[in-house]
Amino acid sequence: MNARWHPPLVAGARVQALVDADAIAHNLAVIRARANAAMPAPRIWATAKADAYGHGLALVMPGLKEADGIAVQQLPEAHACRAAGWQGPILVYGGLLSEDDLALLDLPGLHLVISHEAQLDWLSAAPPRPDAPAIWLRYDGDIRLAGFGREAYPRVYARCEALAAQHRAGAIGHLSHYARAEDEDGVAEADASFRQAIAGLPGPVSTCNSAALLRHPAHVAATDWIRPGIALYGVSPLAGVDGAALGLRPAMSLTARLFAVQTLQAGASIGYRSAFVAAHDMRVGLVSCGYSDGYPRHAGTGTPVLADGVMTRVLGRVTMDVMMIDLDGVDHAAPGMPVTLWGTPELPVEAVAASAGTIAAELLTGLTARVPLTARL
Amino acid sequence: MNARWHPPLVAGARVQALVDADAIAHNLAVIRARANAAMPAPRIWATAKADAYGHGLALVMPGLKEADGIAVQQLPEAHACRAAGWQGPILVYGGLLSEDDLALLDLPGLHLVISHEAQLDWLSAAPPRPDAPAIWLRYDGDIRLAGFGREAYPRVYARCEALAAQHRAGAIGHLSHYARAEDEDGVAEADASFRQAIAGLPGPVSTCNSAALLRHPAHVAATDWIRPGIALYGVSPLAGVDGAALGLRPAMSLTARLFAVQTLQAGASIGYRSAFVAAHDMRVGLVSCGYSDGYPRHAGTGTPVLADGVMTRVLGRVTMDVMMIDLDGVDHAAPGMPVTLWGTPELPVEAVAASAGTIAAELLTGLTARVPLTARL
Repeated sequence: MNARWHPPLVAGARVQALVDADAIAHNLAVIRARANAAMPAPRIWATAKADAYGHGLALVMPGLKEADGIAVQQLPEAHACRAAGWQGPILVYGGLLSEDDLALLDLPGLHLVISHEAQLDWLSAAPPRPDAPAIWLRYDGDIRLAGFGREAYPRVYARCEALAAQHRAGAIGHLSHYARAEDEDGVAEADASFRQAIAGLPGPVSTCNSAALLRHPAHVAATDWIRPGIALYGVSPLAGVDGAALGLRPAMSLTARLFAVQTLQAGASIGYRSAFVAAHDMRVGLVSCGYSDGYPRHAGTGTPVLADGVMTRVLGRVTMDVMMIDLDGVDHAAPGMPVTLWGTPELPVEAVAASAGTIAAELLTGLTARVPLTARL
Repeated sequence: MNARWHPPLVAGARVQALVDADAIAHNLAVIRARANAAMPAPRIWATAKADAYGHGLALVMPGLKEADGIAVQQLPEAHACRAAGWQGPILVYGGLLSEDDLALLDLPGLHLVISHEAQLDWLSAAPPRPDAPAIWLRYDGDIRLAGFGREAYPRVYARCEALAAQHRAGAIGHLSHYARAEDEDGVAEADASFRQAIAGLPGPVSTCNSAALLRHPAHVAATDWIRPGIALYGVSPLAGVDGAALGLRPAMSLTARLFAVQTLQAGASIGYRSAFVAAHDMRVGLVSCGYSDGYPRHAGTGTPVLADGVMTRVLGRVTMDVMMIDLDGVDHAAPGMPVTLWGTPELPVEAVAASAGTIAAELLTGLTARVPLTARL
């Protein structure tokens, strides 16, 4: 039982997100081509945490067929991947959250990231099994979001080897994540430190999110598994470059409807706090989407929108259920007209994120249950 | 079918929102006492749009028993209220979104807000019925989020009377919403303009959201139905005053878990972009909640959190799945420890919203489907 109310998934929805699995397959192929430029080419953990960056695990699955593995955050998501038909390996970044999670390890092909030592204590209490999960030790690196530092690493690795000998763990790998992969100088030092920590310890290596893959191709050959995330969904991880410039296609479009047209006289204000004042007589469109759907309230006047294909802008302050747009140049505007809020080559989600002072991933993952997710056919 | 993945609703959830229907009943009683100070006392439309401000319609329903009516945004939500057991009147702010919505009018006790004329055209095409929906004409006022201006209002009212005579509409009322109800001078002019527009036209009047009720009690006696929203959920609509100061109780608490403790040496940074640098050796807690759950990425270093009851602060930048907190003074911190992110008297959601540069309603309505909503028992 989920206690939330969901709108019915109907054609006349007031707002909906269309998810394009073909775009994801395309983006994965673009990423694969980049990876294959390295020799040897790494394999790909396609990162689908946060319900596939908000796109819906089940809806993206057809686009991820060519991945070598799928990476999620939580163990229940790993089971959801299996339920959605994924037969390959599954990496769980969040690994064991508590000892209770041991009950969720009964999943062949499971890989667990280990980021603190209590997780190994819990694994020690698990029953031995022939298909025990592979484990990836996390190096804390320069981001320090859990993981082990250089001093602890060899000792912890030895603990993992003991668990493997007891059939409480499978193969052991090494994983690192960068804090500043999008910067030109963002990887070299962090990578050198990681390589020192794992020197002499056997096992495959996983580094490189989308930004590292695109910005630091020279590092790709030295890793066995890369872990692209945001680029799979068509979004650029690099500042000032959009997905289209990288050959990527948006995997989610968000579309609402114009439900009314208002005429504003020069000097009249609209919205809470009178945040927009008309400089001249103008027509304003009221669009059936607001911050309670997940459209960012920080996106103020000037944020781009596409009204039936015509580029225009948000006016004033987004409300809980409604946002206002400028209808200058949209002469045929009428109730029911579709208004695209993001997710086309002309209006990438990156542009809306920039207006709202945040990143595209927050917008994509932030849509609420009130926005139906629908497969684009 | 909903295409989103939902976590199982288990006691060990990594993050969860507890919804307290008793607090809502308490807040409604506080609002009722304020309303009853007016003579005559208005009735109360308890506003539960956006899935009851993110609390879950079904979970808040036991707390709304004493309301005179429930107000939602969309027609499907009205049907959800009935399904959740509400037998009283239901007001739909968004009214008819398109002609297709006529199929959803088969609901006794329905009240529709009419905010543009095409809605009346559609109603003209509906079959007559003895229990046709009551309609509330929306005055555009100083907020101008749809509705009719002073010139159009009498003519549109006459159209409504014709629909009523045809049994395509029931009773007709007048509704207005303020753009700046929280300001001392925010209501008088807008209300005077509304009263002029409806002068001589019969029917009940609805004005006053939470802010108007609390800030402008003198206006309450002149309205037949008030429409409190945010205050029902324990949140103050007034800047610089929190819900507790108004006698309100938070209706939702958001709690995550500490999943790891990191030690930072002086000078070490943590998180993306190295957004936080330790000034001295310190312990940092990694908490299993991120912006993909709906915690705002704009909440930076210093945003308050309660770690097992100890007030501390967010560090650095919130990530998709994880946030960092300062463990100074939280000596007993260990994996599994609960961390409250908002929703207690000491840590109202208003405080987090202020840190993130937004309003509490955006946070409450912005939790994603990945956060289980659970009734507080």
